This record gives sequence, C-alpha cells and structure tokens, in this order.
Amino acid sequence: MTPEDAPTSGRSLRSTITSQGEVRLALEERPLPALGEGQILVAVEATPINPSDLGMLLGPMDPRRLTPDGNDLVGSVPAELLPLFRDRLDKPLPVGNEGAGTVVAGAPEMVGKRVALFGGSMWADYRVADAGAVVELPDDVSTAEGAALFINPLTALAMVETMRAESHTALVHTAAASNLGQMLVKICAADGVPLVNIVRKPEQVELLEGIGAEHIIDSSQPDFAEQLTEAIRTTGATLAFDAVGGGTLASDILNAMERAQPPLEQYTPYGSTTLKQVYIYGSLDFSPTVVERRFGLTWSLSGFLLTVALGKLGGEAFRRMRARVQAEAKTTFASSFAETIGLADVLDLEKLGVFARRSTGTKYLIDPSSDRPA
Amino acid sequence: MTPEDAPTSGRSLRSTITSQGEVRLALEERPLPALGEGQILVAVEATPINPSDLGMLLGPMDPRRLTPDGNDLVGSVPAELLPLFRDRLDKPLPVGNEGAGTVVAGAPEMVGKRVALFGGSMWADYRVADAGAVVELPDDVSTAEGAALFINPLTALAMVETMRAESHTALVHTAAASNLGQMLVKICAADGVPLVNIVRKPEQVELLEGIGAEHIIDSSQPDFAEQLTEAIRTTGATLAFDAVGGGTLASDILNAMERAQPPLEQYTPYGSTTLKQVYIYGSLDFSPTVVERRFGLTWSLSGFLLTVALGKLGGEAFRRMRARVQAEAKTTFASSFAETIGLADVLDLEKLGVFARRSTGTKYLIDPSSDRPA
Repeated sequence: MTPEDAPTSGRSLRSTITSQGEVRLALEERPLPALGEGQILVAVEATPINPSDLGMLLGPMDPRRLTPDGNDLVGSVPAELLPLFRDRLDKPLPVGNEGAGTVVAGAPEMVGKRVALFGGSMWADYRVADAGAVVELPDDVSTAEGAALFINPLTALAMVETMRAESHTALVHTAAASNLGQMLVKICAADGVPLVNIVRKPEQVELLEGIGAEHIIDSSQPDFAEQLTEAIRTTGATLAFDAVGGGTLASDILNAMERAQPPLEQYTPYGSTTLKQVYIYGSLDFSPTVVERRFGLTWSLSGFLLTVALGKLGGEAFRRMRARVQAEAKTTFASSFAETIGLADVLDLEKLGVFARRSTGTKYLIDPSSDRPA
Repeated sequence: MTPEDAPTSGRSLRSTITSQGEVRLALEERPLPALGEGQILVAVEATPINPSDLGMLLGPMDPRRLTPDGNDLVGSVPAELLPLFRDRLDKPLPVGNEGAGTVVAGAPEMVGKRVALFGGSMWADYRVADAGAVVELPDDVSTAEGAALFINPLTALAMVETMRAESHTALVHTAAASNLGQMLVKICAADGVPLVNIVRKPEQVELLEGIGAEHIIDSSQPDFAEQLTEAIRTTGATLAFDAVGGGTLASDILNAMERAQPPLEQYTPYGSTTLKQVYIYGSLDFSPTVVERRFGLTWSLSGFLLTVALGKLGGEAFRRMRARVQAEAKTTFASSFAETIGLADVLDLEKLGVFARRSTGTKYLIDPSSDRPA
C-alpha cells in the first residue's frame, strides 16, 4: 500500500455517558490522525472482548436496558450514580484494550507485518501506534492467536511475579476456569507453584482437571469452606487473586487462610501474625465486598491493577514476562473464543446480551476487517 | 520488704472458654512463680481496661448474657463459634495488657521503685517481669498516670510513623474522641500532620474542638460523605486508621479519598492510581466490613496490629517512640478514666456492663491494691 492508498478514516466504537445521564454506544466513522515520526497504522483484525473492555463500554449499564436509536444503542444512568463517572462525562470514549492486525502505513519496513499491541482504542478499523510499542507476531502465530497476548497473559504472569516479590509461595485464584485462569494453571504447573483453583460450577472443575489442575474447589458445594481450608493447608497459600470482588468470597479465602495456620503457641485475640493477602483484580460481581473479620489483624485486601503491578515489579520483570508470552503464545497463552463477530455486531443487542455475561464460554473475538466497508 | 516478706501468691483474673462452650471469668488465688535471674515482682496498682483486654476477657460473649456462679461469672459460646477459639480452649487465660505498680521483690536496687510495663497478665495483684523490660516512672508521674503508657501511646505514634514510612502526608482517624484519638490530635498538632477526625456524636465534636482539633466530621450527620470528601481534599489524606471495623465506615473513607482525587486526564474505569489505604486496628463494631468498591483498583484495606507495626518500623523508631512517651507522659499521653475500680469489681455485672460498652466516657482503671486482701 503506498502512502496515497492509506486509509484516511475508519470506524471507531465509542461509548459516551452524558452529564444528563444518557449512555450512547455508537460506531462512528472518524478521520484518522496523520502519522507522526515513528508511528504506524495498524488495520485491526482481531481484538478480544475482555471484562475490562465491558467496564469501559457499559459503565454501570445493564445491557438488557439498552435500546436501539438508529444505529446506536442508548440507555440511561441513574442521577445518583453519575458522580462516579465524573471524569468521563460527555466524552465519546474509545474502547478495546488490546488486539492484533496488519501494518498498513508508516515505517516502510513494517508495512505488511502482523503485530500485536495494547493501550486502548482497539475496537476500530484502524489504530495508530508507535512502531516501538508493538510486538511482531511470529509466522506460526495467527492474528487471532495474537489478539489477546497482553492483558490476560501479563496479568497471570504478574500474579506469579507478585507472589515471589511479596514472599508468598503458593496461590489461590478465583473464577479459575477463565481464559486467564487456564493460563495461570499452566504457568504454575511449569514453575512448580502450588495453586488452589476456585470455580463456581461442576463443569468448570472438569475443564480444569482436563488441563491438569491439581487443587480445584467448587464454591457451590456445601463443604466449600472445609475443602478450601484443607487445600490452603496443603499448599501453604497466603496470597489470593480474586476476579469476583462482590460478596463474601474474598472473606471466605482470608478466613480459610487463618484456619489453615498452625495453632498459636501463646493465645492472643489477634490471630496469627502470618500476612494473609487477597488482591481483587476484577468485578464479576459488582455487589459490595462483605468481610467477616474472623482472621485476626494480620491481613490485607487490596485492589490489583496490571499497570500498577507492572510498575512495582520493574522493567526487568516486564521484559522477562513479555519474552515468555511471545515464546509461549500458542501454548500457555492461547485464548479460546466462543465466537468471532464483526465490529458492528458489538451493537447487536442479542450478541451483546451474550458476551456481556462475562461467563466462561461467552468470550468473543471482534474482527473489524470482517465487516469493514469496502 | 525483705525476701522472706515477699508475697507468695496473689489474685489473677482468668478467662476460660471450654471445649464444651462454657465461658468462665474467675478471680483465682494463685501461687507466684519463683523469680528468675534479672526478674522483679511488681505489685500492680493501676491497669486500664482497654478494648483489646475486653477481647481477651469476653471472647464473643455479650456481657449481658453472663450470670453469677459463686464468685465467678459464666456464659456460653454457641457451638458454631467455638472453632474461632480453637487456640484458647480450656486454658484459663490471664488478662490485662499493660499497667503500673511498685516493685516489691527482685533486684534490690529496683525494690520500691514505681514502674510501667506491658505484655499481658496485668489484671492481677502481682506481676513477674524482666527488670530490663519495665520503664521507671518519673517522680512527677503518678502510678495511675503510668498505667496506660504503652498500648494507646505507642499505637498513636505508630500511626504517624507508619504514615511517614509508607509515604502518606496526612491521616484520617475514626472513633477520634477516644483516649487514643485525643493523643493523636496532640501528636499531629505538634508534628504538623493534617488529621481528619471522624466521630459519631455532636458532643464528641465539642470534646475534640476543646483540644484544638481542626478537621472534625460527625458521621451521624446527613452530609457526612460530602464533609469527609472536602476534609480529605483539603488535607490530602490517603491513609486512614479505623477503630470501628464493621459496617461501611472504612468503605466510606476509601470512596471519599477517591472522590477527593483530581480528575483523571485520561479516563479509565480503574480510577486514580494514587494508593488509598485504610488500616482497621479495632473492632468497636463486630459486624462485617461492607466495602462498596467505587474507588477504582488502587486501594488497600488491612489489619493493623501494634506488635507487627513496631516490627516493621524497626528498633530505632521504637526507641524514639518510647522516649517521647516518657517525656510527654503527663501531657500528650495522659489518659482519662471515668472511674477506678478494684480487681474483684471486674466481675461485678453492673460495672462490667458499663466498661464493656467501649464508648467514650466509660473507660475504667483497675487498682488491684485497692481491694487486695491483707
């Protein structure tokens, strides 16, 4: 493609919450910015729908309350929730944290190459990027396989790196049958890290058994607390990563960790002085986190954000993690998608109703090139 | 007092939870252990009733459910709660974290001196201690004034030291009209640390105004959230110490801290990346901690235990803190008590019903020498 042939506009999915409380999801044709020094233009061919993207797309909206308005979808946010969105009001926000595609303009040596990238605005026909910030895909990794090589793989690796940096020796993970959870099972098996997997359904137990997970606890079972305590005692886990957030799950884990401690030699009402840490990294359940404090005073419940964690772990750890993701793109870090849809399909109420469920087996991939107007 | 005159037994208040679920509070006459090398015997003359002592004394018991059994008080723990007390079952635990008294036996150069000490077993006529572990009281500090020079003073100082060690610049404190809260007001005023005081009643606002507190928020007021946000914005506080524990207070503080952050330049659904930390150090409310996660992902809610905090702060900080407590025993670290009672009075249901409320103005001091049998 010569510079004259390079596209000058493309579709971009935008989510707006207005200061009047209207939510509007729209696929807008927008002019592309001119490329700056060292920049490239990527035609997006694969971008996943991650839970984090749904947070940006829908804000507080239940997708079942959206209605069509021409080609857009509209809904409304209750006035009392609007202050939570102070910093995004009236801004048509781009969506899509990561993806892959083909370089179509910019540095000539890059044009034609397939690359993966992240940093937002991926739910679009085209994405401008710094050439140095993208990762070239090996020939044997398809573009679809390259779509999700950042958020989940780096998050899973950051969990294990954080475990080591904070002097724990084993992990508990919830929503463990997710794409991310399956990656974590493989990483921990390879690295010899004991991992307790918490799932919510019997079929998810089977799924994880199928990939060799050793400790799998089904939180829907009546003896969940006892099983969890026993698995934590066996593994010695004092660190957990929780994708659920709401309800008592984080609290259940902290209490199980305390029960798994050896008896106190000298009794105090403050429990063991072994640090018990749960990080909440997702919000599959938006309801309040309910903490039954029966685990003494040596505990911590914290948010976990990938970018902040990477900053703490430092540049050397990040390079090590990225190299591992590239080397194991087709194995450890392979994602599976229930369906591939076009970019306009994001605004199809029926499809949106499925992928917005954030549950195992409803993970979708978007291929904007599949419905890009000629 | 010559060695032959030294007491050989004394009363000791004991709390037992049996594996059958009985709670028994008893004042027992027990033989005193022989003094080892470097040990002294202190006749206890002043020991406070701290919330932490009530945890040891009562376990999960509502004191209104205790009944007399001879000179003892008895009650019962529901079977489902017994596993929480696994490590203390059937042990007659001594009570009383700190206190002061007069040395009556041991190293001759110490006998007759008035000392303060901590480490448990203070609700007794006599306490054996290592001579090196006690602090001699200056002549102008009464024994009653020396009774509470460890737990509250060191906790208040550890809050400010932790603030500095963890790179925060201002504090929020709840139950701020407590003895500890009043100490914190004085420390922060002296050190120029901005402090937001949260109280629950209008009269507590007056009390704190009376000692010069600048930011005082009454959580019973309808505009509590707005006032708290504004005070946090003014002070820049990103660290809080919460004595309440249960309910939404810790969550309210985290949400106010997030609202007080400047607008995000680039919107993300994950909120500001400024760390917002709340430490829970008490349990005035035993109900679950309910966390409305509307403050992004850069937050932490943790337990705070004095001994663990001192360990993290290190020996130099500890020596600095202890020297300050001695120097300011009659000013910054003066405690006020509603009443002084005898040791047997702890088992008086009427008195117990008052001091077990853990509320401002019901703080009692025990003087075992006042009702020690001749």
